[in-house]
Amino acid sequence: MSAENPDLAIAQAATLRPITEVAETAGIPADALVPYGTDKAKVDVRKMSTPSTHGTLILVSAMSPTPAGEGKSTTTVGLADAFTLKGKRTMVALREPALGPIMGIKGGATGGGYAQVVPMEDINLHFTGDFHAIQIANNTLAALVDNHLQQGNQLGIDPRRIQWKRVVDVNDRALRSIVVGLGGASQGVPREDGFDIVVASEIMAILCLASDLADLEARISRVVIGFTYDRAPVTVQELGVAGAITMLLKDALLPNLVQTLGGTPALVHGGPFANIAHGCNSLAATRLALSLSEITVTEAGFGSDLGAEKFLDIKSRLGGLSPDGAVVVATVRALKMHGGVAKSDLATEDVDSALAGTANLARHVENLRKFGLEPVVAVNRFPTDTEAELQAVLDWAHEQGFRAALSEVWAKGGEGGLAVADELLAAMSGDRGGGFRPLYDPAGGIEESLRTLAREIYGADDVVFADRAPAQLRMLKRNGWDDLPVCVAKTQYSLSDDPTLLGAPTGHLLHVRDLVPKIGAGFVVALTGAIMAMPGLPKEPAATRMGVTDDGESIGLF
Amino acid sequence: MSAENPDLAIAQAATLRPITEVAETAGIPADALVPYGTDKAKVDVRKMSTPSTHGTLILVSAMSPTPAGEGKSTTTVGLADAFTLKGKRTMVALREPALGPIMGIKGGATGGGYAQVVPMEDINLHFTGDFHAIQIANNTLAALVDNHLQQGNQLGIDPRRIQWKRVVDVNDRALRSIVVGLGGASQGVPREDGFDIVVASEIMAILCLASDLADLEARISRVVIGFTYDRAPVTVQELGVAGAITMLLKDALLPNLVQTLGGTPALVHGGPFANIAHGCNSLAATRLALSLSEITVTEAGFGSDLGAEKFLDIKSRLGGLSPDGAVVVATVRALKMHGGVAKSDLATEDVDSALAGTANLARHVENLRKFGLEPVVAVNRFPTDTEAELQAVLDWAHEQGFRAALSEVWAKGGEGGLAVADELLAAMSGDRGGGFRPLYDPAGGIEESLRTLAREIYGADDVVFADRAPAQLRMLKRNGWDDLPVCVAKTQYSLSDDPTLLGAPTGHLLHVRDLVPKIGAGFVVALTGAIMAMPGLPKEPAATRMGVTDDGESIGLF
Repeated sequence: MSAENPDLAIAQAATLRPITEVAETAGIPADALVPYGTDKAKVDVRKMSTPSTHGTLILVSAMSPTPAGEGKSTTTVGLADAFTLKGKRTMVALREPALGPIMGIKGGATGGGYAQVVPMEDINLHFTGDFHAIQIANNTLAALVDNHLQQGNQLGIDPRRIQWKRVVDVNDRALRSIVVGLGGASQGVPREDGFDIVVASEIMAILCLASDLADLEARISRVVIGFTYDRAPVTVQELGVAGAITMLLKDALLPNLVQTLGGTPALVHGGPFANIAHGCNSLAATRLALSLSEITVTEAGFGSDLGAEKFLDIKSRLGGLSPDGAVVVATVRALKMHGGVAKSDLATEDVDSALAGTANLARHVENLRKFGLEPVVAVNRFPTDTEAELQAVLDWAHEQGFRAALSEVWAKGGEGGLAVADELLAAMSGDRGGGFRPLYDPAGGIEESLRTLAREIYGADDVVFADRAPAQLRMLKRNGWDDLPVCVAKTQYSLSDDPTLLGAPTGHLLHVRDLVPKIGAGFVVALTGAIMAMPGLPKEPAATRMGVTDDGESIGLF
Repeated sequence: MSAENPDLAIAQAATLRPITEVAETAGIPADALVPYGTDKAKVDVRKMSTPSTHGTLILVSAMSPTPAGEGKSTTTVGLADAFTLKGKRTMVALREPALGPIMGIKGGATGGGYAQVVPMEDINLHFTGDFHAIQIANNTLAALVDNHLQQGNQLGIDPRRIQWKRVVDVNDRALRSIVVGLGGASQGVPREDGFDIVVASEIMAILCLASDLADLEARISRVVIGFTYDRAPVTVQELGVAGAITMLLKDALLPNLVQTLGGTPALVHGGPFANIAHGCNSLAATRLALSLSEITVTEAGFGSDLGAEKFLDIKSRLGGLSPDGAVVVATVRALKMHGGVAKSDLATEDVDSALAGTANLARHVENLRKFGLEPVVAVNRFPTDTEAELQAVLDWAHEQGFRAALSEVWAKGGEGGLAVADELLAAMSGDRGGGFRPLYDPAGGIEESLRTLAREIYGADDVVFADRAPAQLRMLKRNGWDDLPVCVAKTQYSLSDDPTLLGAPTGHLLHVRDLVPKIGAGFVVALTGAIMAMPGLPKEPAATRMGVTDDGESIGLF
């Protein structure tokens, strides 16, 4: 095991069960399995019968994170392995990592230590090609739109009002704002444009929300690519290419099966980011897991203000899901940061600051209670944490009447998640009130939905509509799209839209600067604060530390 | 079988052997096989021993084509199946299709009728993800270059002299000429830029010429991404990211195994276009096929003036290959077109025009003879051909002293290729003169190499250097790159650089308008005439006729 890179070393040292055996354990019939190598596969759900029952669903969320992350995927995987250890038929459902951030800062996104999904290298790199398929489907549509302009523009599309952007799975800030179609009459129609990262593509959202191929095609048909000179929406249906775009996605729609280091079957499928998109793995994967297991553990990106809120208000509502339990991952490091400690000092013991930072954690617990869930706080142990810090946080949680337990899955795998698993079972067996309910009714209109989110979840006083948002709001109403759920793009570092407001901010305003209708996905994206749908690379990208041995083993993923 | 779409219907109706069984037939050990589903696999050549012998190599080329193509892949596959029928241990090595043109005009590129590689749908769509890996490797490098500019530009890269372009596997003319980095100081450095199609990426060329992972990384390290303000070349090595880019390509470097409808094991790997790149499948696949078979049949894109010339002058020289036999595919349709018949009238019998068009075919035969090869003319039968036309062409060929035979592989599979196979065996058993030799010695300099190609292969009087070419020529000399082989980007429709000059043009000039050093690939690309490295879509793209059934079967690939 390399001291620099323990996650990769642990993953590379693991002996994986053949994926055919993992599938058998999970109850997936052999003829529905499409192997990709010996340790990953796609599951052709079309070849499986419709399930009559489904198991318990547990959603893992987190407090507002440090830039290094709080180990939410790690906790999700370790918790699933804990349930497996307890003899429960368990599956874990996760998002696929995006390559862009891996090359930038993250280095990998498959859990860590002894709580990982494997094969770690493949999942972090190209995996089964889903993101690549989404990218080319998205960009083929973009080329068809620009080609329509070039070939006479029969539909009368206004080049200034095209909202369909191209995407790459690369953090490429130079593509945020560009001009295309230069070079003369044979080179296209010049217009302002820009690329998003692939995880922000509406195709990604659609793939993650579609129930089958027919629904996928219907959603793609409804996608609005832009508007005519008369401001009428133009759909993919009108371009006549929904079939081709769906064909490019027919394999990507099938969930991917892998395994955890603890032997739990894992479905890793779809991966919208939670700060710029809806933040959940595919509905297809969640439904498959629920149909096969007693307990499904899943995660949604970042905190209760982002992935969890969207899991509950968008994915669960649309997919008829009803989560039974929830986890909020907390770390002493993040608590200290929210308590005012500088990032460079997070490794130094500081009980008071950790306790000061609990205001952020408490807000996330309260947020989830507003959805009718009683979450368990999982304190994810880091090597730099001291016993005094960990104990103080657990004591504080118990004093607040929160369920809480220490999670040591990074070091111990499933064994380290048993305490959290027990708390969850206790929480789910007790009185659960009315159970899960979404926070808002989209029928009240987008302004009202945003106001509810701002006040109830972000702790804001009100919403401000600026820049393009007021005009877009009028456009949404004109087209009858004002009753769609809202998918807020917002920084993950604060409950507010300002990444510098740590802890549990109040009295602030939610600044909505744009509203983008994603009619195929079935929601409206609200861009808030300074969040952008295309990240950049840092000064020293993780890519500079990566490589491959002559035998084909990766170096520098972590 | 659908009358509209017989190729897809034939492919979908075929019963495929499990890929494990195909591998066993081919002599590939089980532990070197990485299955992708049940009917395709990658071959981990690192797990195979170095071969001591190798078989016979046959190169399939063609006359200058009509826009619909002359059935070169079809002939290649059918010929391989003919050798299999004759009891020869045979493999076929082909390029992977690119998605961009499939969505535009082509519809598919895996042969046709009863001479196809299968699974046809998968190979034409995402296959094993090689092109996607190349795309993201290429674009990750581009983002790292722009990020270097943004983060202080320590290497002093001149933003006006960056030659590394982004790529997509989409025919997207609006991306040919763009401006990136707009929007202010935090959004990158504004500069003129453009996208190429993925098959023109230097990464594609490198992947197809690399002998192993170490060579792949060494080549990527040598890639010149642009120049400093002092006009010194800047390499990937200096950016420190060759390891990361290589890691993204570690699986893509492994050849893909599939099968033909006739049961011949097929390696389909890599796919640079022959009009804008070097036009041959990977060296890794060709070497693997040669090591496993008595006879390897391979193709290079378009005619003797494009793919075949590059196969012989670039790939064979670099890889130490020595082709034993060659085929020139001809069709009555193409002969009539070169004889002056309008494209709309090609289905009408016209023996005289077909004979008038033989001037083009004769030039391709003579071109291959200049490399020491004695090609067989394969007259690929189309349903609209008449017996009189076919017989006239065969008679003409025999009168010229050319070896020639009718090929009926589209309708009859391997049986329809036996006559061509027999001619080839006869040609290779006879006196072959000195055998294969490249046409030019790159040590003479790029101007001289281009002059030799222009006169000997294209029938031109001389070369004209215009636009950027004279300055680029000085730059090449200044940097010591003047002795590299040249890879000419040129229209496929004419032996000249003018697509309207049909037949066997003489007295024309080769117009070189740009020279681009591809130091990682090891050659200099010469852009001639009006050829562009990013195609466009037609007014009615093939995409508008495509779709997918609810069971996941493709519609409209052909």
